[in-house]
Amino acid sequence: MMAGPAPLAVSLGDPAGVGPELIAEAWARREGAGLQPFFVAGGAGLLAAAAQSRGIALPVVPIFHPAEALDCFDRALPVLAGADGDYTPGVPDRDGARLALASLSEAARLTVEGGADAIVTGPIHKARLAEVGFAHPGQTEFVAEASGMHAGDAVMMLAGPHLRTVPLTVHIALAQVPAAVSAALVERKGRIVAMALMRDFGIAAPRIAVAALNPHAGEEGRMGDEESRLIAPAIERLRAEGIVIDGPFAADGLFAPRARETFDVALCMYHDQALIPLKALDFDEGVNVTLGLPIIRTSPDHGTAFGIAGTGKADAGAMIAAIRMAGECAERRYGNA
Amino acid sequence: MMAGPAPLAVSLGDPAGVGPELIAEAWARREGAGLQPFFVAGGAGLLAAAAQSRGIALPVVPIFHPAEALDCFDRALPVLAGADGDYTPGVPDRDGARLALASLSEAARLTVEGGADAIVTGPIHKARLAEVGFAHPGQTEFVAEASGMHAGDAVMMLAGPHLRTVPLTVHIALAQVPAAVSAALVERKGRIVAMALMRDFGIAAPRIAVAALNPHAGEEGRMGDEESRLIAPAIERLRAEGIVIDGPFAADGLFAPRARETFDVALCMYHDQALIPLKALDFDEGVNVTLGLPIIRTSPDHGTAFGIAGTGKADAGAMIAAIRMAGECAERRYGNA
Repeated sequence: MMAGPAPLAVSLGDPAGVGPELIAEAWARREGAGLQPFFVAGGAGLLAAAAQSRGIALPVVPIFHPAEALDCFDRALPVLAGADGDYTPGVPDRDGARLALASLSEAARLTVEGGADAIVTGPIHKARLAEVGFAHPGQTEFVAEASGMHAGDAVMMLAGPHLRTVPLTVHIALAQVPAAVSAALVERKGRIVAMALMRDFGIAAPRIAVAALNPHAGEEGRMGDEESRLIAPAIERLRAEGIVIDGPFAADGLFAPRARETFDVALCMYHDQALIPLKALDFDEGVNVTLGLPIIRTSPDHGTAFGIAGTGKADAGAMIAAIRMAGECAERRYGNA
Repeated sequence: MMAGPAPLAVSLGDPAGVGPELIAEAWARREGAGLQPFFVAGGAGLLAAAAQSRGIALPVVPIFHPAEALDCFDRALPVLAGADGDYTPGVPDRDGARLALASLSEAARLTVEGGADAIVTGPIHKARLAEVGFAHPGQTEFVAEASGMHAGDAVMMLAGPHLRTVPLTVHIALAQVPAAVSAALVERKGRIVAMALMRDFGIAAPRIAVAALNPHAGEEGRMGDEESRLIAPAIERLRAEGIVIDGPFAADGLFAPRARETFDVALCMYHDQALIPLKALDFDEGVNVTLGLPIIRTSPDHGTAFGIAGTGKADAGAMIAAIRMAGECAERRYGNA
């Protein structure tokens, strides 16, 4: 990482989705939202057209090096000169998928090299990207490997104004979840989460609440025993290391208002257990943060929303929150404030 | 059921829990909350003592027949003469468990006989009740059998101001959920839910949204195939019967604010999928309603909360909501308004 302040790198996402228009709106609202300077990797013409669909007059400045973004960000959206494409909201095609992939690759490369303090990834459509050669399950894995890490060491955290959650297992069938839950996985992800909340989120002693796998936390073994067999021993070992961690707690009560106040992050056992409460409470401001990497990466926690792209209906809250969080994490990690 | 108006029957719940004090507060707030007349099955002295712990001066009138409750409800809490006990909040014992069971049995019997229009059950502690011979998994199954139904025909619905959810499978280990999800179960519970929302909730054409079992609804089979193999065909068949039902939808987005507006009830595949969003959004007003029975039964969706019984900290919102909902359902079903 470079020592001085650097801008944030934002990737376009699928140009037929809501990514470009939300990036444009984030720039337009940069002052009120308190956003750090950022640039977009490619798509200058596309961004201006997407902005127009929302009634935003977007001045775009082509730049050739990330650092140039710092000077012009106040008056225009800095866009790295390079690939561009037509704006056809709601109609994904291969050219668009290629542009999304080029933008992601470039933004990741620049962040890994230190030209950017963090990467914020716009929403892609995995199946569309796979058609043009994208071999990763998702952007998280792509960014992990781009930064020299094994994808398994990248930990997805969802963060909103009310809640932070981490799914222990992610994109697997529910039937495979019980076998995938292990004490070793709880320990490994627990450590990464504790470390990341200290370093990038400014929480001196993060309180981790661990959700149970079974209803009522298994009710003393009457409905499953993973709690006593795997999860509780892992919690004990992490606690012995000095990590503030408790559980396993029955998951249904864990996200109720008073319970939420007792922890900084909930380590959940599977995808929907982590994402249901997050989206129920913080849908329009949910950020997907990747923990455990040498670089900082955030993303709005929503998809391409092809169905409403170009209509002005998509809410920019999550994109703005993702850019703001990337900037805040960078400030804490690199001290660029 | 009797034709004329009848009061609601409320069972005490475990006397060491928060049940009695919340019943007392519900009576004290009966006018503002718009509650139908109700009586409690037993525990006159206990209720007065529990009320005192919350600073409520509770006049209690002993009654010998449910119908007497209608005349005195305005000026005092009607309590069926019978079993009573000491008030020792936070310290459950066998005498208390026996009293809870007697109260539940009596309230259920009177409701089945038509002396009460509905039963509202106070919170019990299952393990405590099992120690005194309660052989049912929970109150839902007890009430089902008391009303002559098989426990498997009782469908649990959670209802709050923001959301209604029904878990397809309930108190089983997560590892057993995928095998327990069947097309037949989706159809059977779907029909009961549709019928109950029409009859007892006044919704002419209830919109049922079905949650997927797997993350991202299986993503076209990449993460599980229960959606296409079991759930979707069941939905098709229910739709052919004229039921307004759609899905399976990825569960994480289903409880976001705008998505919630598109359905009246979500049919979920397992316990936590249904209860996490309900408790996250409606913790203090969540009502557990039993659908599919010849009688109406509601319950506050919380436990005995032994830890805060007698401290005045327990919120009466869910108890009040449970009593109000029982009265509203009875009005719709029996036309007693």
